[in-house]
Amino acid sequence: MIAPVPHAVVVDAVARALAEDLGGAGDVTSAATIGAGVQARAILVARAAGVIAGLPLVVETCRQVDAGILVGLSASDGDMVEAGAVVATLTGPAQGILTAERTALNFVGHLSGIATATRRLVDAVAGTRARIADTRKTTPGLRALEKYAVRCGGGVNHRFGLDDAVLIKDNHIVAAGGVGAAVRAARTHASHMVTIEVEVDTLAQLDEALDAGAQVVLLDNMSPADLAIAVMRIGGRAVAEASGGITLEGVRAVAEAGVDVISSGWITHSAPRLDVALDVVSNPRG
Amino acid sequence: MIAPVPHAVVVDAVARALAEDLGGAGDVTSAATIGAGVQARAILVARAAGVIAGLPLVVETCRQVDAGILVGLSASDGDMVEAGAVVATLTGPAQGILTAERTALNFVGHLSGIATATRRLVDAVAGTRARIADTRKTTPGLRALEKYAVRCGGGVNHRFGLDDAVLIKDNHIVAAGGVGAAVRAARTHASHMVTIEVEVDTLAQLDEALDAGAQVVLLDNMSPADLAIAVMRIGGRAVAEASGGITLEGVRAVAEAGVDVISSGWITHSAPRLDVALDVVSNPRG
Amino acid sequence: MIAPVPHAVVVDAVARALAEDLGGAGDVTSAATIGAGVQARAILVARAAGVIAGLPLVVETCRQVDAGILVGLSASDGDMVEAGAVVATLTGPAQGILTAERTALNFVGHLSGIATATRRLVDAVAGTRARIADTRKTTPGLRALEKYAVRCGGGVNHRFGLDDAVLIKDNHIVAAGGVGAAVRAARTHASHMVTIEVEVDTLAQLDEALDAGAQVVLLDNMSPADLAIAVMRIGGRAVAEASGGITLEGVRAVAEAGVDVISSGWITHSAPRLDVALDVVSNPRG
Amino acid sequence: MIAPVPHAVVVDAVARALAEDLGGAGDVTSAATIGAGVQARAILVARAAGVIAGLPLVVETCRQVDAGILVGLSASDGDMVEAGAVVATLTGPAQGILTAERTALNFVGHLSGIATATRRLVDAVAGTRARIADTRKTTPGLRALEKYAVRCGGGVNHRFGLDDAVLIKDNHIVAAGGVGAAVRAARTHASHMVTIEVEVDTLAQLDEALDAGAQVVLLDNMSPADLAIAVMRIGGRAVAEASGGITLEGVRAVAEAGVDVISSGWITHSAPRLDVALDVVSNPRG
Amino acid sequence: MIAPVPHAVVVDAVARALAEDLGGAGDVTSAATIGAGVQARAILVARAAGVIAGLPLVVETCRQVDAGILVGLSASDGDMVEAGAVVATLTGPAQGILTAERTALNFVGHLSGIATATRRLVDAVAGTRARIADTRKTTPGLRALEKYAVRCGGGVNHRFGLDDAVLIKDNHIVAAGGVGAAVRAARTHASHMVTIEVEVDTLAQLDEALDAGAQVVLLDNMSPADLAIAVMRIGGRAVAEASGGITLEGVRAVAEAGVDVISSGWITHSAPRLDVALDVVSNPRG
Amino acid sequence: MIAPVPHAVVVDAVARALAEDLGGAGDVTSAATIGAGVQARAILVARAAGVIAGLPLVVETCRQVDAGILVGLSASDGDMVEAGAVVATLTGPAQGILTAERTALNFVGHLSGIATATRRLVDAVAGTRARIADTRKTTPGLRALEKYAVRCGGGVNHRFGLDDAVLIKDNHIVAAGGVGAAVRAARTHASHMVTIEVEVDTLAQLDEALDAGAQVVLLDNMSPADLAIAVMRIGGRAVAEASGGITLEGVRAVAEAGVDVISSGWITHSAPRLDVALDVVSNPRG
Repeated sequence: MIAPVPHAVVVDAVARALAEDLGGAGDVTSAATIGAGVQARAILVARAAGVIAGLPLVVETCRQVDAGILVGLSASDGDMVEAGAVVATLTGPAQGILTAERTALNFVGHLSGIATATRRLVDAVAGTRARIADTRKTTPGLRALEKYAVRCGGGVNHRFGLDDAVLIKDNHIVAAGGVGAAVRAARTHASHMVTIEVEVDTLAQLDEALDAGAQVVLLDNMSPADLAIAVMRIGGRAVAEASGGITLEGVRAVAEAGVDVISSGWITHSAPRLDVALDVVSNPRG
Repeated sequence: MIAPVPHAVVVDAVARALAEDLGGAGDVTSAATIGAGVQARAILVARAAGVIAGLPLVVETCRQVDAGILVGLSASDGDMVEAGAVVATLTGPAQGILTAERTALNFVGHLSGIATATRRLVDAVAGTRARIADTRKTTPGLRALEKYAVRCGGGVNHRFGLDDAVLIKDNHIVAAGGVGAAVRAARTHASHMVTIEVEVDTLAQLDEALDAGAQVVLLDNMSPADLAIAVMRIGGRAVAEASGGITLEGVRAVAEAGVDVISSGWITHSAPRLDVALDVVSNPRG
Repeated sequence: MIAPVPHAVVVDAVARALAEDLGGAGDVTSAATIGAGVQARAILVARAAGVIAGLPLVVETCRQVDAGILVGLSASDGDMVEAGAVVATLTGPAQGILTAERTALNFVGHLSGIATATRRLVDAVAGTRARIADTRKTTPGLRALEKYAVRCGGGVNHRFGLDDAVLIKDNHIVAAGGVGAAVRAARTHASHMVTIEVEVDTLAQLDEALDAGAQVVLLDNMSPADLAIAVMRIGGRAVAEASGGITLEGVRAVAEAGVDVISSGWITHSAPRLDVALDVVSNPRG
Repeated sequence: MIAPVPHAVVVDAVARALAEDLGGAGDVTSAATIGAGVQARAILVARAAGVIAGLPLVVETCRQVDAGILVGLSASDGDMVEAGAVVATLTGPAQGILTAERTALNFVGHLSGIATATRRLVDAVAGTRARIADTRKTTPGLRALEKYAVRCGGGVNHRFGLDDAVLIKDNHIVAAGGVGAAVRAARTHASHMVTIEVEVDTLAQLDEALDAGAQVVLLDNMSPADLAIAVMRIGGRAVAEASGGITLEGVRAVAEAGVDVISSGWITHSAPRLDVALDVVSNPRG
Repeated sequence: MIAPVPHAVVVDAVARALAEDLGGAGDVTSAATIGAGVQARAILVARAAGVIAGLPLVVETCRQVDAGILVGLSASDGDMVEAGAVVATLTGPAQGILTAERTALNFVGHLSGIATATRRLVDAVAGTRARIADTRKTTPGLRALEKYAVRCGGGVNHRFGLDDAVLIKDNHIVAAGGVGAAVRAARTHASHMVTIEVEVDTLAQLDEALDAGAQVVLLDNMSPADLAIAVMRIGGRAVAEASGGITLEGVRAVAEAGVDVISSGWITHSAPRLDVALDVVSNPRG
Repeated sequence: MIAPVPHAVVVDAVARALAEDLGGAGDVTSAATIGAGVQARAILVARAAGVIAGLPLVVETCRQVDAGILVGLSASDGDMVEAGAVVATLTGPAQGILTAERTALNFVGHLSGIATATRRLVDAVAGTRARIADTRKTTPGLRALEKYAVRCGGGVNHRFGLDDAVLIKDNHIVAAGGVGAAVRAARTHASHMVTIEVEVDTLAQLDEALDAGAQVVLLDNMSPADLAIAVMRIGGRAVAEASGGITLEGVRAVAEAGVDVISSGWITHSAPRLDVALDVVSNPRG
């Protein structure tokens, strides 16, 4: 049960991507070389093992290019697939399929890359209580899709933006006059529906945050040993989140320190693309 | 002399990024903890060595968040900087600077990552005739910015979209009835201002493409040895472009085969972010 | 310290409002009857006592109509003013001031109406622990502005939309198989940054919700007596929110039952406009 | 025969409303608690008697949320319904129905409120020659919908915006050098397709307006007695419109003075919402 | 006193035009050949005599391309200029001036062509009571600008769109059951602020239209002799508008038949461009 | 095989055109005079001989106005038709057909005018090697559609915008320090996929351009005799394009000078509309 992206977000993302690829003149190569009536069949194939994310964008890309293209899915977003796995089959006008190809692949390659990176971290902490979360370090304009890809990879989302949760960092603390004052200011001014998180550097700050009623504490760049101490100190009074310098190698030690959440910017800002390709299996002929 | 991105593209990209980060409620943390009149000074610092790209987006982000933020640049897009280098200084309302922080960093981190990856390939082929080019394997919706980042890294742009150049691939060739027929169809139907490129797999296809007047030939996934043969065969009659499986390790051998252009999808679809951060140097106080 | 609306929201709302009022032909009356160079001075006057909200929209409306109009503010959003109070003075081209008049008044009248209604409830519960909150029962397309008006009136915001907090109602409970199951499902699938609220009808449900870890409980349409019992049962383990049939007359009794939050749809969906008018004090002459 | 709203206006209004309610993350509560395949049936019920307006927006909201939701209408816009009346039945995916609920209700509640308020005034003047008209005092961004709601309530529309009719008020008169001069300026510069209305305060101004060829005269804030004199003076040479301080109690006296049109800002800017609710009648189960 | 176009219309039209000319890569020629710091001065020159329209679009185009370009106007919209007249001087960055050139010229050439065509008809009927009006036969998407150009040429605007005036044609008449029934239906359902015009073919229809209270009658494709009879029959009870097959040669005879308005589609749908060019007078050097 | 316009361009152009024609109130005439259930059949007829272009916009206009209108095409874009030819039949709701009429006609009349003008030039050069091309002298905002119309008329497109090809003109040459320097700068900075064209005035410049590797040379305003000399000098080393002052009378002489391409601004900026009308053949009755 992966929470979907609002459909309008999908429609808009595809429309923008196609606009930048088609401009005002469209696919001049296909128009010049392929007859309007030529039909084709093509498969979307994962060239490497990974977690698939972005199939609704493949479907929508085809629909916007040519509603006559039929898309049959043989995998679902969130599925782990092997190299060589066919994830979808496209049947219909050859011109349209080739026009849609790159945009569809750019979406599914990018999002599956994020899902795959997320899954790696999720698998690495299997058996611990830690969940893997994303951050706001996303590609500008694609946050809703990238956070969806994180969910496809088995991760959970951190706050979506600056507007839906409070996250008090050092500069806010200085401006407010201390951790406790900052948390109290947030409780006074922010909605009771908004979760309040505080970034703490020391155990003294941690105590102050807990006393002031912080619901989540961000333990930034701490060693596993320090994290374990902090988790004990928290004692269930708040959600314990570790962040900073999370690597595939080091993540399990962080998780074993007992934190509830481990957030990683890397899964969205630097995950390499999953190689997904389109192979035309029934060559277009007039 | 790096060709700039149209200003409207910058304005639109920033507006979309801020909209997704601010929603309808804005930065609830800063609003709750920092007084409206508090001023701050912050520096944009490269945490790792790399090529900077995206400073116009930093400037525009600050302008859209709060026109009272002054941005002083100490580097230019395209500059190679060391770890620790200050690339910009922001002075003004503390609320605005903290609100703008993540969006500005997401742009400059992502684009500098692409510029840095490009520069690595460019440096690796230094002294050869080969230029490093991008592809259409870009993040959907960000193509104009990513292709600009490639220019910042010293690369050149391949075609922007499906609309501004002809690139005949295998499916087009089959549909048109051969390489020569496809090229001739393109010359007949497409504008005389549109460059015609053909992907070829064999020397026979190469001859056919050249005879039909292809201006650029895409030599896909060939070994350096085969590339050298193809380049000789081309003999200056067309631009020779190598593509497929380009790695930092292998790119020089490809270049030394004598090709004119080497295109890489990796520099846009999988370049890791350059770590750029914002440090508040004058802590905000009421 | 009222958290502001993101500037882009203000700009967009004004642009849409002016577009519907000006169409393609503009203000044909002013164009026909007033010389382009004629100057005027006008005051924005509250015709009735109330809380002002929407001045940034007045400023932006003038700016978009004619950047030559100077707007001097003599009140701030959130101020309680008497009937007859001047809240702003507009000086500049007479054509522009008259063109901007209705749009500016529609904004400030509508939003001040909401702020004033909110303030009435806030005043009615003064001295209790209860805060007055809004709901999602807002005018479609104006939610960010209306929730800002609630803040201007001294209220707090409930969740902004379906995306930023969990609110489990009866149908979700039935589908999930009970209150406890629903809360647990939400804790499993939703972000740790998302607050979980449950609507409960009975004390049994209340117990179940608290046991499952609900952070906020919505006590819907309960009598003050029942609310008092529920508040005692909650005992600080969750935020107690009363909702349903809140009236100006009855709100104090609800507050005195000890709830933390009282939410009202009426303040946004049915608050009458505050009568604000524009008087030209220096009549325009050629 | 109620003139409909252009379909694109409906589509756009719904898209904006859903965007503000769903953000980038969508309905997190339904996603977490209701299975994707669960079906439900729900009814849209008027909780109070009133005139229905906005059903096309209910239909469009469901369509945009999930095209699989079937909407069966049992009332039409413009119908007067009793409390308890079912106006529509929604059948389909439970997640989608609950996601669409609030947006659909916000539209139909707001617009039906306007239609109901209009109908009250229309009923109050039944048997006289007076028609009830709206003004430009509408909620910014919703004018087309609110004027449609006025038509649903049996009212007629005044001008849509500043662009489609001339309405000369006191400041225009001063600037133009008198009522006659202002009307003549309008006749000279404005299209012959644009109706010219003048606001008059005295009988002398009325004479001047009629002599200059005004087609509609706005009799502002006059007592019924003065209105009767003015109507006699007009003698059918122009449309007589009364405005200002129209109340449900006083409107009949105004109408009986013989005016052709009575315009009211209250019906759009301050009409309370009609209470319309959604009841799930077939509880969603897995 | 030419009624201006709403500023937002100008901004939007220029943004769209620049977007289609600049795409994502911008002006690649200027970027490659002209140094960023090179300054230039250029003049906008009318190559043929005509009426200028569109200067606000020239100013806005320059502003959007590069705010550093100064535009000095030596003519105003509506001015009749001789061939060779300088209408504006542009000073600033050479890159920007050359980038803006074509878009600015396309606007001013197109709109001045319409203004010039309008002026020819206006001059041809000088001394008669007839005014020259436009129609809805405009270039899709540019109606507000083209109707402004008609005003610049001395013409008046007919209705802007289907929404702001009633124009009953033969199909409406058949559907409504006759001219009188159609006019009465319009008076019943349409706003009292909406002018009602009827197209009539015969004197019998004319009588029926006048009796039913039509405010404007459209006399379509009538000979001057028939027009004169119709005008006499109308006797000032309605505005007499002639339309259909209006030519520069024939328009005076139509005007002399005594009609009030002559409407022409040709001035918007087929007016040839006025040749306006940009000459760089201070050649750009590094 | 005429390359189509991207579908999104068609959808957007129609949406904008309908928005300006329908405003917020829609077609008030049809709403008042025609019953909602009345059906009609109408034909789209060419009143003059010409080449049809724009039928996809007719179809899309009907779809957006009322999806119940069926459009049957009896011609295709690019077809030469005689006066009186029926090109399409519309069947469905009478209100919708009349609402759609003017927008549909404005598109097809404007674009068919361009296609017809293009065809005249194409026919005039029949039997020569010359192709007729357009320019960037298009109506702002309609370039993609107008260039499509040129293709329908048998012409070819020149570059779409400033971004997809290099065209070096005199000011670029001066800034770069000569023809050769300018071409070399372009080859260095621009993509290898971008065609480089240079405007030359003299044979010396022509030699310089060819030596520097220009792929297309623009021979501006040359006499046929001079063109013939230039063509000989070029000797197939570049595409020879003639431009400037192309008339229907003179174009053949230009073509016979041996140029490859003749570009004309007139076909897009000044082509008169093709007269296309809508006749209701089955009169609407209740």
